[in-house]
Amino acid sequence: MLNNHYYCIIMAGGIGSRFWPISRADQPKQFLDFSIQGRSFLRRTYDRMKNVIPEENIIVVSLERYRDQVRSHLPELPEQNLLLEPYNRNTAPCIAYATYVILQRDPEAITVVTPSDHAIARHEIFNSTLLEALSYAAGSDALITLGVVPTRPDSNFGYIQMAGKPEERRPVKIKTFTEKPDANLARVFIDTGEFLWNSGIFVWRADAIRKEMEKYAPEITNLWVGWRDVLGTGEQQAFVDRIYTDMPRTSIDYAVMEKTDNAWVYPAEFRWADIGNWESLYEYLAYHDADGNALNRTSRRLLKDCSDNIVYSTKEGKLLALRGMEDFIVIDTDDVLMICPRDEQKLKDFLSQLAMPEYEEYR
Amino acid sequence: MLNNHYYCIIMAGGIGSRFWPISRADQPKQFLDFSIQGRSFLRRTYDRMKNVIPEENIIVVSLERYRDQVRSHLPELPEQNLLLEPYNRNTAPCIAYATYVILQRDPEAITVVTPSDHAIARHEIFNSTLLEALSYAAGSDALITLGVVPTRPDSNFGYIQMAGKPEERRPVKIKTFTEKPDANLARVFIDTGEFLWNSGIFVWRADAIRKEMEKYAPEITNLWVGWRDVLGTGEQQAFVDRIYTDMPRTSIDYAVMEKTDNAWVYPAEFRWADIGNWESLYEYLAYHDADGNALNRTSRRLLKDCSDNIVYSTKEGKLLALRGMEDFIVIDTDDVLMICPRDEQKLKDFLSQLAMPEYEEYR
Repeated sequence: MLNNHYYCIIMAGGIGSRFWPISRADQPKQFLDFSIQGRSFLRRTYDRMKNVIPEENIIVVSLERYRDQVRSHLPELPEQNLLLEPYNRNTAPCIAYATYVILQRDPEAITVVTPSDHAIARHEIFNSTLLEALSYAAGSDALITLGVVPTRPDSNFGYIQMAGKPEERRPVKIKTFTEKPDANLARVFIDTGEFLWNSGIFVWRADAIRKEMEKYAPEITNLWVGWRDVLGTGEQQAFVDRIYTDMPRTSIDYAVMEKTDNAWVYPAEFRWADIGNWESLYEYLAYHDADGNALNRTSRRLLKDCSDNIVYSTKEGKLLALRGMEDFIVIDTDDVLMICPRDEQKLKDFLSQLAMPEYEEYR
Repeated sequence: MLNNHYYCIIMAGGIGSRFWPISRADQPKQFLDFSIQGRSFLRRTYDRMKNVIPEENIIVVSLERYRDQVRSHLPELPEQNLLLEPYNRNTAPCIAYATYVILQRDPEAITVVTPSDHAIARHEIFNSTLLEALSYAAGSDALITLGVVPTRPDSNFGYIQMAGKPEERRPVKIKTFTEKPDANLARVFIDTGEFLWNSGIFVWRADAIRKEMEKYAPEITNLWVGWRDVLGTGEQQAFVDRIYTDMPRTSIDYAVMEKTDNAWVYPAEFRWADIGNWESLYEYLAYHDADGNALNRTSRRLLKDCSDNIVYSTKEGKLLALRGMEDFIVIDTDDVLMICPRDEQKLKDFLSQLAMPEYEEYR
């Protein structure tokens, strides 16, 4: 029997420009399936959460323009559990919106906040970690981030430094947040044993995060004055659309976690990756051949004299016939063919030239 | 006023496996448009011929399976001018069929035979050359091939050696036919001044080619015994389907032109190419950028650090974004992405591994 006070906020409003041209303004990462599992990141996130959180307490926040896609990926999601923002304003406004909705339903709520586009494995550890953190948060004002015990000095993730030695089944106070370090610094982080990967998964009492947001991010919460009269009524969407025109764009880390005295991290041992760049996608792709080529599917391919490529086609059944390619990224979508050396800097520079006009309106 | 005795046979039954995966069993070269003209090779061949031949006298021979495609490319073609073979048996059977159809309509016919998938430019010279050759053929039994004055030692074309010096506006007797020579031999051919490119375009009186086919290719013409009673009746297609089960596979060059004493060549100065391999396609593609990349269209592309590639996408409007590619062939079709070094041998070897099962039944 799952605890009725446990809630979850799945943040599914990302616009996912990092994997352009696979992810697009109309097909961001949470709706993609990079693996052969046949389930999108969003679907898998939802399925993962419902082991811990009662389904009627799972709230999905996305953008109005993704309404139909969320519905098709999560047909069982109740109408009132789908919150739609008019624009993506990063995580803090998204969390504020869902927190007010949850508080109106249950002032005692304890909430998990999770991105919808991360890869997670070892589900039993994940579930027990979440339940422990929820249980701890229920009896405190702690704002807890799950911190994944790092397995390598990855410079693509954010790091959290613990203020002390972790004890079994207890969070540790956070000393610092560090955005993606360079390779050398990442190595130092790992060697000290004081750093954890910032999973972007939070656990806290809804009233605790509300209080800290009102204290540290009044530019957000002030817009929500009068929320009790509006949420759950026919006025809700119009109200949200109106206040979002003034909504600042800011992350929960920046707006609250780095400022509050109550930031804690809970060390976690499940496998986790924010597949945020092509190199992490390389690791994650479903199929790897003996020459180090990674593909998103196994059928209909002929790779000859090819090594260490990432080959991705969104078209089911399309024959991928490559010869003499080494260390390239080859992406084939319905309307883009991109071929570029597998080098983050070259890719970034190349993509910036492509302009991606479809994203501009959402930035 | 065009001469009512002038007829044309457009041979449009090729299966075009050489440009796989652009050309396919269901989309051979004659139906493609490699240029930006918006007209297929077949359409352009037809339009070219109707400057010289009355439209009602233009006969198209294709395969039954291409019926709908021919109709869509040539909607004005009268039903009785579309002849459909059940299988492709090379040029000699195709020409025999159309010649009997023409002879039944007009025993005095003088006929141009032309492939449907060649590239031709300088249309005024083409038209005047054809008219001169038709006029000459009308008064003789000569079997005339148009021989294009070569502009380079191309080893991808067949050559015809003239038996003597050409005179103005007269054909020359043919001394030898040579299939694709190697590069050195092609150079020798050019230096002698005695060789012309074999255009595959023929001009002759219908009764003259009939007589020579009956003499040198009775294995074909014997199957046509009784043709006068069948052609133009409801029995025609069933008759053709029946006799083609025994029809030998042979070219008109091999079956007749290399054997007859009446083989002539008419030197021609129009621009001509049988785009029979990727290198000739490279020359012919619509767009060439300053770095030597050839593309089939000019819009929606970003090529960076790319040189001397052939880039071809069948998808209108698809963005082609390539970086760091040199001397590659990149072909994107609906169901195949092929990337291979621009090297005929590597390509040939690679394509043979791809098996192309769709062609096997037609070979």
